Amino acid sequence: MDGSFLIGSKSETTDNTFRAMNPATDEALDTDFAVSTTGHVAEACKLADAAFDSFRELDPETRAVFLETVADEIEATDGLVERAMAESGLPEGRLTGERGRTCGQLRLFAKLLRQGRWENVVVDNAMPDRQPLPRADLRQRRIAVGPVAVFGASNFPLAFSVAGGDTASALAAGCPVVCKGHPAHPGTSVLVGQAIRNAIKKCGLHEGVFSLIQGPSNDLGKALVEDPRIKAVGFTGSRGGGLALMKLAQARPEPIPVYAEMSAVNPVLLFPEALKARGTDLGKAYVGSLTMGAGQFCTNPGVVLGIDGPDLDAFAKTAADALAEAQPQVMLTSGIHANYDKGVEKLTGEADVETLARGAEGTGCNRGQAALFATSGKAFLANPNLAEEVFGAASIIVKCADMDELKRVLSEMEGQLTITFQMDDADMDAAKAVLPIAERKAGRILANGWPTGVEVSYAMVHGGPFPATSDPRTTSVGTAAIERYLRPVCYQDLPDAILPKAVKHGNPLGLPRTVDGEVEG
Amino acid sequence: MDGSFLIGSKSETTDNTFRAMNPATDEALDTDFAVSTTGHVAEACKLADAAFDSFRELDPETRAVFLETVADEIEATDGLVERAMAESGLPEGRLTGERGRTCGQLRLFAKLLRQGRWENVVVDNAMPDRQPLPRADLRQRRIAVGPVAVFGASNFPLAFSVAGGDTASALAAGCPVVCKGHPAHPGTSVLVGQAIRNAIKKCGLHEGVFSLIQGPSNDLGKALVEDPRIKAVGFTGSRGGGLALMKLAQARPEPIPVYAEMSAVNPVLLFPEALKARGTDLGKAYVGSLTMGAGQFCTNPGVVLGIDGPDLDAFAKTAADALAEAQPQVMLTSGIHANYDKGVEKLTGEADVETLARGAEGTGCNRGQAALFATSGKAFLANPNLAEEVFGAASIIVKCADMDELKRVLSEMEGQLTITFQMDDADMDAAKAVLPIAERKAGRILANGWPTGVEVSYAMVHGGPFPATSDPRTTSVGTAAIERYLRPVCYQDLPDAILPKAVKHGNPLGLPRTVDGEVEG
Repeated sequence: MDGSFLIGSKSETTDNTFRAMNPATDEALDTDFAVSTTGHVAEACKLADAAFDSFRELDPETRAVFLETVADEIEATDGLVERAMAESGLPEGRLTGERGRTCGQLRLFAKLLRQGRWENVVVDNAMPDRQPLPRADLRQRRIAVGPVAVFGASNFPLAFSVAGGDTASALAAGCPVVCKGHPAHPGTSVLVGQAIRNAIKKCGLHEGVFSLIQGPSNDLGKALVEDPRIKAVGFTGSRGGGLALMKLAQARPEPIPVYAEMSAVNPVLLFPEALKARGTDLGKAYVGSLTMGAGQFCTNPGVVLGIDGPDLDAFAKTAADALAEAQPQVMLTSGIHANYDKGVEKLTGEADVETLARGAEGTGCNRGQAALFATSGKAFLANPNLAEEVFGAASIIVKCADMDELKRVLSEMEGQLTITFQMDDADMDAAKAVLPIAERKAGRILANGWPTGVEVSYAMVHGGPFPATSDPRTTSVGTAAIERYLRPVCYQDLPDAILPKAVKHGNPLGLPRTVDGEVEG
Repeated sequence: MDGSFLIGSKSETTDNTFRAMNPATDEALDTDFAVSTTGHVAEACKLADAAFDSFRELDPETRAVFLETVADEIEATDGLVERAMAESGLPEGRLTGERGRTCGQLRLFAKLLRQGRWENVVVDNAMPDRQPLPRADLRQRRIAVGPVAVFGASNFPLAFSVAGGDTASALAAGCPVVCKGHPAHPGTSVLVGQAIRNAIKKCGLHEGVFSLIQGPSNDLGKALVEDPRIKAVGFTGSRGGGLALMKLAQARPEPIPVYAEMSAVNPVLLFPEALKARGTDLGKAYVGSLTMGAGQFCTNPGVVLGIDGPDLDAFAKTAADALAEAQPQVMLTSGIHANYDKGVEKLTGEADVETLARGAEGTGCNRGQAALFATSGKAFLANPNLAEEVFGAASIIVKCADMDELKRVLSEMEGQLTITFQMDDADMDAAKAVLPIAERKAGRILANGWPTGVEVSYAMVHGGPFPATSDPRTTSVGTAAIERYLRPVCYQDLPDAILPKAVKHGNPLGLPRTVDGEVEG
């Protein structure tokens, strides 16, 4: 394995190195990875800026083929899943699936590029005879915002890392990417980075379209966000990390948008009739969603709201029994494991919080021991600590006095990625009354499923009001993610000879357009 | 004239009052306007929040009729143009036209609502048999972000004030508006506010859909932006004002977007062949655009770039001659006039800046005396002061050594609302080479026209990279302005009975949709 980082087409090394840890054993893995310097960050940004104009003006077909080539190269990378397993502690099946999702989303963006609506071409034809003043010919399209900084996330070493959703959507938009690899999986990052570089070479693109910065220090990320050539930031991770990036980005001479997907507890609402009819099944399914992947998902169900009474007690009992049997799983890093234990310990010690169950205890390193708590609606309303995310398989059941209190609890919660309704037909009126509250709070509202498992598609919204994300106007999963990296430009009376192809009079790219307010093509 | 401000359906007064000044005479106008308190701000925000859920869920047709009714009520308001004339010093023809534009944009948003694409309904149908996992039914639409704070602008007392572009687009999106009226035209603001209130009453809407706060203190605006119920801010004004609002909004426990349209010098590029062929005409037209409305437009051409030589000299000579005859016009406020004089004085005293001409001197109050300057590309590159906006009829001609220096000057300028090309066919190659630079710098690029005069239409972009605006992903003029106040929500497997109409299975509103990636309707 090559321990170099990637600045354009150059593989760079420094004397300063670090190693990945295997979280299952707390032992360092074998390869020394060179730590980038802030000088390398500047060099990568300079190359990205140099690549920008040519990359953004590629025909959509060429950029689509490039994305597909990245996917092909990732699939052709030997040892990728094995390395990701060693660096993340995640099992093979999960990582094979994640690789499929990573390549699938690259190919979906390729399809999107070919469909052409992403460019949002809008034409208002000239009206030279209009009174009192003529109207000029006006043509709008969306163009790439500029080079984008992407921060790899630890919990999806493939799907939200070097060639993950942020990178795929930025490249699709026509933005060169400078990626800061997550220090927990540098080997995985290099392998994927090399796949992107191979695709750049095969497609004959400018080397600056992609660079990979590596290292454990926050200074690299700071330098990246502060570089004047960077025009937007994509990040998935902790609230603290996201807030720090937002602050840096706002303090720049030219502030830039940060798309940070941060923290959520993803409330699950148990409506009374559903709880009565299938509380036992729900209890089991809940624990299944909660403990999947050691609970290390942004959409993990961290809070359950129900009306106090025997039906909720039965649900809680089933959940507690199931959770007690949950086997410990290796968490992503020792830091995440330590934070998880700290969060669980804090909740355990809070007044009016009952520990309903703990999962089986682990014997190896960094095993996350699941945890289930319960409290009252009143206590939950009084103590904001109880609504804080504990990243991992910990969740709290909130026993509300009645539906009014449940609504109040939901209303006072912070912004969320998801809100889940467990409801039967007889709950319809109650659910309808809660829906407006849920719409204000979350980017996705789902019924009779579980929030974990985020479809990569056209309609998906993986986003939501602060602090779920830094920007609720967008999504980080699904095709709409491309919109984060585009801005509109209007061309007024420009001669056809210099108009960009997308907005030329003859529509040579055959793009769908809105002309004088009506959709064409 | 009623000196009350409007909190929902209540007309409120306080003992603390202020008066509008007539800038043409520097005399106070007759009516005492009550100054709102921060308590009134909170009350208005509370009402807006209470109105939000019903207002955002109105059928698009009902909201369209409301916008049209606002336009009708504005047109039916006696004495509006007269009051705006007295408070702004703008002439009747300009304000009659501006009233037409204000009502026209309300009606255009009504049309947009009926067309339905603004709601961006995207459906991914369920795939229950998909392997290895089924796909859920996913339905996305965009919903209003919440109550919006709008700050009235001084330079468009109708089209960018109480019922101007920001208010129209926010109301169209389904966001209640709390407007902070500009203290320069409180009477105009009250008249327009009453027109909106009349429309709310006629349409039977919740009183909280609109409130008008009045007063000269910045504390009111601060309280408004800091109110937790406000979810976005629309502002047109100075860079200092916009930056202050951005800072307040970012410092909130829940940061919110600020759409501030701030400052620009709107470079005009004189390409060599156009300059040679029609430099004299260009010189005259330039001064016409520069001095229109005393130069008090965001898109005023504050900087002209050309290649040094006899053709540019001839252009400058014609422009200087025309400008020397420009009659002084009343500026909007004594503060704006004082700032203008200060800016002109500062430019006059800068090294390597030549004063080419001054307009005729005024005899009355607050008359803006036009000013034309020239400098070299080298001096312009060396001194950032020369690129600062002077709000009013002042402009500087930058004589670049060659096309490379011109490109460098443009590259190093800050973000702009517009960039104008004056070009002939023989300039095509040169213009083509400059276009990518222009695209990076501005929201609108126009050829052989002048940037003043902003069409309200589908394709318009009145926006641009910082500091032209706080958010280059949007526009404050044209139908796309609605997007600033919307966010996507995804509904997964929700029973049809509780799905919002826009995303119900039978499409009862008949909205255009994207279904499984293909456009329908």
